[in-house]
Amino acid sequence: MTSHIHPTALVSPHAMLDENVSVGPFTVIHDNAQVGSGSRIDGNCELGYPTPLAEGLPLIIGRDSVIRSHSIFYQGSAFGDGLVTGHRVTVREKTVAGKGFQIGTLADIQGHCQIGHYVRTQSSVTIGQQSQIGNFVWLYPGVLLTNDPNPPSNDLLGVTLEDYVVVAVKSTLLPGVRIGRGSFITAHSLVGQDMPENSLVSGSPAKRLCKASDMRLNGDIRIRAYPWQKRFVRGYPDSIIEAWASGNLDISFQSEELEP
Amino acid sequence: MTSHIHPTALVSPHAMLDENVSVGPFTVIHDNAQVGSGSRIDGNCELGYPTPLAEGLPLIIGRDSVIRSHSIFYQGSAFGDGLVTGHRVTVREKTVAGKGFQIGTLADIQGHCQIGHYVRTQSSVTIGQQSQIGNFVWLYPGVLLTNDPNPPSNDLLGVTLEDYVVVAVKSTLLPGVRIGRGSFITAHSLVGQDMPENSLVSGSPAKRLCKASDMRLNGDIRIRAYPWQKRFVRGYPDSIIEAWASGNLDISFQSEELEP
Amino acid sequence: MTSHIHPTALVSPHAMLDENVSVGPFTVIHDNAQVGSGSRIDGNCELGYPTPLAEGLPLIIGRDSVIRSHSIFYQGSAFGDGLVTGHRVTVREKTVAGKGFQIGTLADIQGHCQIGHYVRTQSSVTIGQQSQIGNFVWLYPGVLLTNDPNPPSNDLLGVTLEDYVVVAVKSTLLPGVRIGRGSFITAHSLVGQDMPENSLVSGSPAKRLCKASDMRLNGDIRIRAYPWQKRFVRGYPDSIIEAWASGNLDISFQSEELEP
Repeated sequence: MTSHIHPTALVSPHAMLDENVSVGPFTVIHDNAQVGSGSRIDGNCELGYPTPLAEGLPLIIGRDSVIRSHSIFYQGSAFGDGLVTGHRVTVREKTVAGKGFQIGTLADIQGHCQIGHYVRTQSSVTIGQQSQIGNFVWLYPGVLLTNDPNPPSNDLLGVTLEDYVVVAVKSTLLPGVRIGRGSFITAHSLVGQDMPENSLVSGSPAKRLCKASDMRLNGDIRIRAYPWQKRFVRGYPDSIIEAWASGNLDISFQSEELEP
Repeated sequence: MTSHIHPTALVSPHAMLDENVSVGPFTVIHDNAQVGSGSRIDGNCELGYPTPLAEGLPLIIGRDSVIRSHSIFYQGSAFGDGLVTGHRVTVREKTVAGKGFQIGTLADIQGHCQIGHYVRTQSSVTIGQQSQIGNFVWLYPGVLLTNDPNPPSNDLLGVTLEDYVVVAVKSTLLPGVRIGRGSFITAHSLVGQDMPENSLVSGSPAKRLCKASDMRLNGDIRIRAYPWQKRFVRGYPDSIIEAWASGNLDISFQSEELEP
Repeated sequence: MTSHIHPTALVSPHAMLDENVSVGPFTVIHDNAQVGSGSRIDGNCELGYPTPLAEGLPLIIGRDSVIRSHSIFYQGSAFGDGLVTGHRVTVREKTVAGKGFQIGTLADIQGHCQIGHYVRTQSSVTIGQQSQIGNFVWLYPGVLLTNDPNPPSNDLLGVTLEDYVVVAVKSTLLPGVRIGRGSFITAHSLVGQDMPENSLVSGSPAKRLCKASDMRLNGDIRIRAYPWQKRFVRGYPDSIIEAWASGNLDISFQSEELEP
């Protein structure tokens, strides 16, 4: 199959679009962009936005991706297969993300950060430089990961979120904080301390209230809310759903079967 | 009068624009869009963004509307006359809103929600799916209506705001909360409980402090701040202003005179 | 040197672009826009957006400015030399700002406000009408300056931030508040009271904890964090850095040497 480029789109002859890529109207694709096969780039986007901070480096978008309209990606970042974005996302240079990354509308990813597999953010999320995000992490609307311990300064101390962490709406993580695997941070929290794995974290300043796995579902007190992967699987690959169902809740992407 | 379509705009021949509609440069109007007479669509907009979640359904924009530049509306939503938006609003499918809806810059309306007449939001508001918003509601910058009681889950439990509710800046309403008619929620609150009508609500977690109608104006303690419609009428239709002036503070849109 | 206008850009013949200005694809420049020499306007921008609230007034962009893609500036505003913006900023009419203004991605500046020299905002900042911002002020992501003391009302009571104030992430300043010179407001605060100069302000509702100059650096307790201009100078002009180094921490822009 051949690609379908809208006649008003401006695609550099040096950009590399694999087969079966579509590009919408008024989209600009710069020299350094590489887009995997089967991907759809909507209208009014800009891919490979040039920056001296990533001179000569490509933007790599994996296969079967969907980039919704009005989004901007800088050169010098790389995304695994199955990237899906909302509208008007902004992603700067040196962002490296795994497979199945979902970015909500109006997200602002400031670059120089590492993001695992199957991470999902909802809208209006801000991810500061030097953030380290594990696999299967969820960020809800308005979440902010900071990095400057002494504003203003030249220090950059990113936040670390381990695998399966869930951060609820409008919570802020202060510079250098590490949140342990499987923790849940409630809405509107301000988190200034490291938290061990499986923590339920809440408040401003936030404290560890109990184990996340002690929480029950709102609406059905008989069911534990966390680990969430025991009860919520929508949209994940079959191999992962099967692993979770068989009790392997800590998939860590060494196994061959998860490769594309 | 005839419509004025900028030569760079891409308007589907299947779109239905009434008379005297203007369309700005680099705007895309898809097959399923219907725009009422006298409306102005700025540049860089996208109307009728297609989605399989609303297959075959039109986008309906009422008469005398103004959609400011860089805004995106999905197919499958409908708006009464006099819709006015700021810039870069994003409105997804199955949003139904009444007359005189004003949407602030950078708003993110996630669809599958119902919005009454003469609702006004300021900038950077996020309205989650399944939200139910009454008439004459105000949402100030950064307000967020959530919907997932057990993140992540497949449950959607929208927020309900009854008529004349005012939510001040950066407040968050948790899933399933119902706020009674004429209540006022102060800035930066986190609201997790239902509130009866005429409540003054504040804090994180938010509590009912007193009646909203007990509040006095900042700057003039002799005047009650609420119900606000006794003291603020800018921009509403004459018939409504007259009704409020004559003591009818609970207009509910059964009366014929308010129809277009 | 001549200017470089992308062939798809729509530049009014009445707009005034000085020499050596570049304009990117799909950008619209209206009649009333004036852009200083050496400036770069990216693609998908809109300069001089017309409004009856500033009829006949120009938009003035100083020399050597960079306006990143998808940004919108209204007519009737003026910016000193060296304006630098992120992406998708929205700046309305009657915004007046000094030299070296840096505006982060997704900022929403609502106009009718005054901004000093060398002010820097990071992303997703909201600046309400009637805000008064001094020189060398820093606003971090998600900061909101409000203005309506009785929402909804016709009153506009802007926030005043004196020189060298730093407001950390997601803090909200309530209408009419004045923050004294050199104060630091910590993350996620809600500030409802005036604060004297050199205050460390924190909490919701925020209180003055101590002098800002009593704070030590995170990571090195031997060094005072504030005044920050004693330890952080990146990107400021040499004349200013020298003045700070020689102990003049309160530059106030009367001196000739600071003019362009």
